Amino acid sequence: MDKRIEQINKAIRNVPDFPKPGIMFKDITPILQDAELFAVSIDLFAESMEGIRVDLIAAIEARGFIFAATLAYKLGLGFIPIRKPGKLPYKTYKEEYDLEYGTDALEIHQDAVQKGQRVLLLDDLLATGGTALAAAKLIEKCGGEVTAVRFLIELTFLNGIDKLQQYSVHSLIKI
Amino acid sequence: MDKRIEQINKAIRNVPDFPKPGIMFKDITPILQDAELFAVSIDLFAESMEGIRVDLIAAIEARGFIFAATLAYKLGLGFIPIRKPGKLPYKTYKEEYDLEYGTDALEIHQDAVQKGQRVLLLDDLLATGGTALAAAKLIEKCGGEVTAVRFLIELTFLNGIDKLQQYSVHSLIKI
Repeated sequence: MDKRIEQINKAIRNVPDFPKPGIMFKDITPILQDAELFAVSIDLFAESMEGIRVDLIAAIEARGFIFAATLAYKLGLGFIPIRKPGKLPYKTYKEEYDLEYGTDALEIHQDAVQKGQRVLLLDDLLATGGTALAAAKLIEKCGGEVTAVRFLIELTFLNGIDKLQQYSVHSLIKI
Repeated sequence: MDKRIEQINKAIRNVPDFPKPGIMFKDITPILQDAELFAVSIDLFAESMEGIRVDLIAAIEARGFIFAATLAYKLGLGFIPIRKPGKLPYKTYKEEYDLEYGTDALEIHQDAVQKGQRVLLLDDLLATGGTALAAAKLIEKCGGEVTAVRFLIELTFLNGIDKLQQYSVHSLIKI
């Protein structure tokens, strides 16, 4: 394994029973607050996109914003926020997705992506894949193409990758 | 006025009656999705910090994350998220602040800032100043020093700057 990935992996803090009993939460704030580790994570994302042309980077609020906006700046691209309902002020498309109990939804501005634009979708965590799939569909509703999907961490035992089979997915760290 | 600031100012989209009737919302997503304008905004933030030494950049979710994380990477600094209650998984400090009706609160991880560390606090918008003041207090609760406060946009008619008199505040755009 790349030494840098090992370094990042080691910094992830396991917080038991968050947000609810039985869940071991992967806390990435120790990566963010360490200037070197944060930079390494961005550089690894950039390397994972070498040779792949995209026009925009889209991310799911809120942790996704941290990595995606930074990578957009580094690669000279625009940034598209995908948010919870009621947060984006202009005309939006909405996509619902299933949770363990009930449903949730995400929105994108209708003019966020132009027809035919190539988009990298980035988030911090791939769990069940429901959120990422909804985000990908929103990009497509705008007429964009989801050229690549990137995650910092993939929880492989949840098989979220199965929901994203039609996309080119890569995660820096698999747990 | 700096031509670049004029350029950013022109890209801000006014959305009437959002999030509620009578409010003219300043939508910054047109800046974000334009690679050049987004880069210019980050560069202007970086210039506003020339000669000022800080160890970390802290930001308030979620729009603040976009600029602050990117600037942290550019300046080689760590990034500290300040979030709504229940979002940060580890031990937190909490600070309540008044809204027009009722109160809201923000949290920071207790180990986010070390004693004596110098922190830049960054957000997209200075309105009444209540949110920024709460965030500054959280940094101080950790033992950090709020060395500088930066905003993309300041709504001067709301006099939020009055609440932040003890800090060194600068906004790229004043409306």
